[in-house]
Amino acid sequence: MKALEDRIRADAQILGGNVLKVSSFLNHQIDPDLMTELGEEVARLYANEGVTKILTIEASGIAVAMAVGSAMHLPVLFAKKHRTSNVSGAVLQTTVHSFTHGIDYTVVVESAYLNSDDKVLIVDDFLANGMAIRGLLHLTRQAGAEAAGIAVAIEKGFQDGGRQLREQGLRVESLAIVEHMDESGVTFRNESL
Amino acid sequence: MKALEDRIRADAQILGGNVLKVSSFLNHQIDPDLMTELGEEVARLYANEGVTKILTIEASGIAVAMAVGSAMHLPVLFAKKHRTSNVSGAVLQTTVHSFTHGIDYTVVVESAYLNSDDKVLIVDDFLANGMAIRGLLHLTRQAGAEAAGIAVAIEKGFQDGGRQLREQGLRVESLAIVEHMDESGVTFRNESL
Repeated sequence: MKALEDRIRADAQILGGNVLKVSSFLNHQIDPDLMTELGEEVARLYANEGVTKILTIEASGIAVAMAVGSAMHLPVLFAKKHRTSNVSGAVLQTTVHSFTHGIDYTVVVESAYLNSDDKVLIVDDFLANGMAIRGLLHLTRQAGAEAAGIAVAIEKGFQDGGRQLREQGLRVESLAIVEHMDESGVTFRNESL
Repeated sequence: MKALEDRIRADAQILGGNVLKVSSFLNHQIDPDLMTELGEEVARLYANEGVTKILTIEASGIAVAMAVGSAMHLPVLFAKKHRTSNVSGAVLQTTVHSFTHGIDYTVVVESAYLNSDDKVLIVDDFLANGMAIRGLLHLTRQAGAEAAGIAVAIEKGFQDGGRQLREQGLRVESLAIVEHMDESGVTFRNESL
């Protein structure tokens, strides 16, 4: 998606450890107008899939998922990394490994909000190793729901998550796929590939 | 705001410990169409205040703040409860006490995204004791920025946060103020009060 690629070229910072820092517009400070464009593009891509629910994970997935949910007029459910006093009902839970933080954490959704008749579109800001996405797929399967597919803003194409998910037959739509990045900048995957 | 009050009456659950559970539409599962209405109402209330930035706190503030930012076409900045590897620059930080979790936690924003020429609208899903809002005000002051005011979806009018903030001369707009709640239901503050 050209608007996102242009914004990454203009404003992203490339840090050590394969960190693509987009916190000026995507996942710390957020540009809502760009987010609306991303949401509309995802809505277009998944328009005919019978999606009933958007599923994401706190915190940085919420903004992208909200934009998708707004464009599709569908409820957005975000998995929580901590059980709070407001998670009162039965929950579905899974474990996600974070390479960023070097820890495993438990994520939960209330069972009441994810059902066997749901067709779930999984949304996140980033797809790298795919650990968070796999956690959300696990929650979807536990609910007996179907995964319509996955939509992320930025995929790190040089990491393995996207390839593995596609090899499982899952539809993965990434609005920008970074094929390579170094101090000289970012190369995106050719859209014809 | 009638649409929000109606939704609370229809779908909120009242739990022990003064918990108003609205996780079917506001802060776990989110209804984006309702959120759009809330955002437009906040945009109307603060239309003439010269706001330059929306500030909230992860995770449940993000959806409301995104709706406000979308309606006002202004950047949304969310304070993080954990320093991650993507928070690479200088940060502003403060401590917030959570009555929900019974702990103090540190929240941070990158200094680069909050400046002395900003006029900040602080947004959250709930206002009860006001601890999170006060933390966001502290970050705003540290940046040398001005607080245009506060906007929350639901204020618990029987707790002290809203009164204290208003006594400090701050503008606080709550789209629904719960004056009283018990097993028989919710009473909202008369809008003429």
